[in-house]
Amino acid sequence: MTTAQKPTIAVLGGTGDLGTGLARRWAKAGYALLIGSRTADKAEAAATELAAFATSTKPRGMANLDAAKAGDVIVLTVPFANAPALLDEIKAAVQGKLVIDTTVPLMPPRVARVQLPPEGSAAVAAQIRLGEGVRVVSAFHNVAAHKLAEIDRPLDCDVLVFGEKADDRAVAIALAEALGVRGLHAGPLANSAAAEALTSIIIGINRTYKADGASIRITGIPAVPKS
Amino acid sequence: MTTAQKPTIAVLGGTGDLGTGLARRWAKAGYALLIGSRTADKAEAAATELAAFATSTKPRGMANLDAAKAGDVIVLTVPFANAPALLDEIKAAVQGKLVIDTTVPLMPPRVARVQLPPEGSAAVAAQIRLGEGVRVVSAFHNVAAHKLAEIDRPLDCDVLVFGEKADDRAVAIALAEALGVRGLHAGPLANSAAAEALTSIIIGINRTYKADGASIRITGIPAVPKS
Repeated sequence: MTTAQKPTIAVLGGTGDLGTGLARRWAKAGYALLIGSRTADKAEAAATELAAFATSTKPRGMANLDAAKAGDVIVLTVPFANAPALLDEIKAAVQGKLVIDTTVPLMPPRVARVQLPPEGSAAVAAQIRLGEGVRVVSAFHNVAAHKLAEIDRPLDCDVLVFGEKADDRAVAIALAEALGVRGLHAGPLANSAAAEALTSIIIGINRTYKADGASIRITGIPAVPKS
Repeated sequence: MTTAQKPTIAVLGGTGDLGTGLARRWAKAGYALLIGSRTADKAEAAATELAAFATSTKPRGMANLDAAKAGDVIVLTVPFANAPALLDEIKAAVQGKLVIDTTVPLMPPRVARVQLPPEGSAAVAAQIRLGEGVRVVSAFHNVAAHKLAEIDRPLDCDVLVFGEKADDRAVAIALAEALGVRGLHAGPLANSAAAEALTSIIIGINRTYKADGASIRITGIPAVPKS
């Protein structure tokens, strides 16, 4: 993919741990980044810090809604509890766009216990909330944020990508590859339940086995061609 | 673990693909095996075939209920649709015992689509059906049956083990190690949703990437001590 073809990525909730880690690696890979946050001030500060990692366009910070309006691809990285309000806020702005949801339905304090929402998954809940005019894909549920943030650190994991359309999943798969990991087509949005539930498993395994950011790999498949 | 300490394993639905593969490797590892099936005739035929793999006690075949009565540890390997009737049949016989459920809630024809049951997972549904007098653990959701059946074939996967009590999970972890794979404590029975959902993902990935039995590995954890 040449720079000219790269979409501008808006990372909403982009001042959090996952958003920061993703944005650093995408900025390094040459993507134009918009960092969204609840306040433009916080977002601008994060964008300034992010600039040190950028190899192409200078990242910009702005309120979540403005980032949702300006971005080509919208990546949601807010906590589960904050997702409904954000989805309602950006709904009109993202009609017709591709939204990549990273939300994991963690329910503090028992975050190591799988507690899927009534819709079956956070991703399906987001799709329902945004409406059928938005193409929702989900991904990046099982990457350790602190490992992402160390941009030269190799990541030993795969990214499972869920969504109704292969073309939309392919955008997220290319973004996984830009992080330095393999992205895999993993079926319809309903299948997101598996990766969302796995996050609680991984949190528990980190505790039980004193691991510094466990993740998953799919084994037994032939080499996957790069996008 | 010495042979004297090894529990007798009853594999219910043991004439199916998963049951056959598990039984072969456990028989080779020196476990005493009881193969259960709907008819004693079928079970006896499977036990006779299994004898070629046994390194210790000769496997025996019998009706599922008889195997549930005679076994120390009961392993359920029937299809999801057949589980409720089997659970009702064995409920009285397995009170006080450890039941290892391998059931995956696949809903033909859309087996590559995650469709978790209203209880959240097949394992929780089994626990509810058997009652609190039975210790239910779930495991072995993501192992490729045909790879298990080739008993000398190395398996590139981890087995996630779910259950309320660490001692009960440890029994399933030892049985995973007897297959030649790593077993991992993965939290309470409710967490089984993750591994059950992953089976649909793996079926889809096998199709999409023309894989011969994909599975999963947990990465990023230190070496796990053997049981």
